Amino acid sequence: MTKTRYLTGITTTGTPHLGNYVGAIRPAIEASRNENFESFYFLADYHAIIKCFEPEQIRRSTREIAATWLALGLDTSNSVFYRQSDVPEIPELSWILTCMASKGLMNRAHAYKAAVQENTDAGTEDQDKGITMGLFSYPILMTADILMFNGQKIPVGKDQIQHVEMARDIAQRFNHHFGETFALPEAVVGDAAVLKGLDGRKMSKSYGNTIPLFDTPKKLQKSINKIKTNLLEPGDPKDVADSTLFEVWQAFANEEQVQYMRDQYAEGIAWGQAKKELFALIDAEIGEARERYFYFMDNMDEVEEILQAGAVKARAHSQDMLARVRDAIGIQPVNR
Amino acid sequence: MTKTRYLTGITTTGTPHLGNYVGAIRPAIEASRNENFESFYFLADYHAIIKCFEPEQIRRSTREIAATWLALGLDTSNSVFYRQSDVPEIPELSWILTCMASKGLMNRAHAYKAAVQENTDAGTEDQDKGITMGLFSYPILMTADILMFNGQKIPVGKDQIQHVEMARDIAQRFNHHFGETFALPEAVVGDAAVLKGLDGRKMSKSYGNTIPLFDTPKKLQKSINKIKTNLLEPGDPKDVADSTLFEVWQAFANEEQVQYMRDQYAEGIAWGQAKKELFALIDAEIGEARERYFYFMDNMDEVEEILQAGAVKARAHSQDMLARVRDAIGIQPVNR
Repeated sequence: MTKTRYLTGITTTGTPHLGNYVGAIRPAIEASRNENFESFYFLADYHAIIKCFEPEQIRRSTREIAATWLALGLDTSNSVFYRQSDVPEIPELSWILTCMASKGLMNRAHAYKAAVQENTDAGTEDQDKGITMGLFSYPILMTADILMFNGQKIPVGKDQIQHVEMARDIAQRFNHHFGETFALPEAVVGDAAVLKGLDGRKMSKSYGNTIPLFDTPKKLQKSINKIKTNLLEPGDPKDVADSTLFEVWQAFANEEQVQYMRDQYAEGIAWGQAKKELFALIDAEIGEARERYFYFMDNMDEVEEILQAGAVKARAHSQDMLARVRDAIGIQPVNR
Repeated sequence: MTKTRYLTGITTTGTPHLGNYVGAIRPAIEASRNENFESFYFLADYHAIIKCFEPEQIRRSTREIAATWLALGLDTSNSVFYRQSDVPEIPELSWILTCMASKGLMNRAHAYKAAVQENTDAGTEDQDKGITMGLFSYPILMTADILMFNGQKIPVGKDQIQHVEMARDIAQRFNHHFGETFALPEAVVGDAAVLKGLDGRKMSKSYGNTIPLFDTPKKLQKSINKIKTNLLEPGDPKDVADSTLFEVWQAFANEEQVQYMRDQYAEGIAWGQAKKELFALIDAEIGEARERYFYFMDNMDEVEEILQAGAVKARAHSQDMLARVRDAIGIQPVNR
């Protein structure tokens, strides 16, 4: 029972791409197989609705993300894989924690401040224009996500460290008022590579420069062909520094393969040839999973069943935790 | 099925007093017996935790309020009487509506603005000092309370009209984005008397001038004896204008009895005698209910059973409503 507990949410608004895979999914899948960890992974659909008012997009993304994680071999026997909205205790805890969170804390949240800055820059008189309460208070929902399962280690990007600190702050306040209830979570900033996209910037849905993880092989080759290169001809020696193609190669290659491509660059490999080899390299890693992905996409009954089983595991924790929290704050049957 | 639907929440932080009885409970109990209405009454414990971090106070208040309403003859066959925290769909809907509510709307809430004003008046640099997210966002929880049951008429005090307007605003936004889902609620400002307290100000827990509704008869007489009067002697004619005692009398008397006391004042009734008669008048109205109150306070198993039955009735509505809302926003099983 001394396994370290990791917790990660995946917002269900997009289609998994190679950047998600390298930066988040691949390390998470590996962790799910590590007997020293107990990992919680959830489809964060109650985060998705903060920004996305397109029901069909959320539905599709939920299916794609679930199928992706399962196809890649998530070990659901050693982890808890669930859909946030299948755990009604989470929004309930979120409201309880709302009552513990100071408004000043939310005022200082980066995402909110950035939105205010945008309004200021645009010369908008109302600094809160277009800002919803969802955007303003989602660090509290995130706190509930974490504290509900006593998440200890929260793998995050740098921009999310603040949220974990807020969760600590809210947990401490609660513990102070009502007695030790929540473990204090810690942010773990992953060292996984940040993958570059087609245009050389960070691969991100918002830049429109992504390579979808699971497309047909033909489409994957086509996407790879679009990676920006320079005008050097076949035979011209090429520089690995600042080469997006090489960086993507590195994210999938072992040491030997990295050295091989370095040599190829020096020897003047043609960009077209390098892209073919990159396709082959990626395909070797994800090809089998792709088959499983399309299988799951065609067999959503199976996926739903796995998610339901995950919800049962998650709720074994969340029901117990919420009962303790309710007791602590005075919400109880009248005959107790 | 054309019954008008009323909805009222009672925050579980205090002990019911005569002011609550006259202003809110008595009219609500009457409405519960009106076949033209379908009333929803709930113990608002998730509102209680906004301001009250004393678990024992919430527990006691919940018991007292439930026992009070039942003792006074609430017709639970023609109404739905439930504890808010027994309906997990409410905080869940509250989060969904949080994503629909603009922050600007909350900025304009009276309760929040009053708290900011207090900070400003005190010369505090941080205008949000001591303000929790519970205080800031409780109009959203109240919106969920109302919209969940398609509450049409919301009996409120003047200070609460704004909240019902906010609920309308949020409902309209949701309906606009996702199709007609919620009825638009309307505030009904009651014409029930506002009872004065011992000191002549409005009877209110925050003024410490209340007369508990269900005390022993001896204590009730004692409380009544504390009602502020003037120094006029027995035999001196007395003025009914601006007499707290007379106003309380009016709240319990029929026309004839009002006239009777008016005459007594003119004839110079002694304050002590008037207070004895007031006790007798009130006791005649609530004496039997008091017996039932103490019975229920000693038999909380029965109360809990009634609340559980109320939760079943409430959830028959709320589960259906939440399912529709989730469908609308794209939160569904992946195999649907």
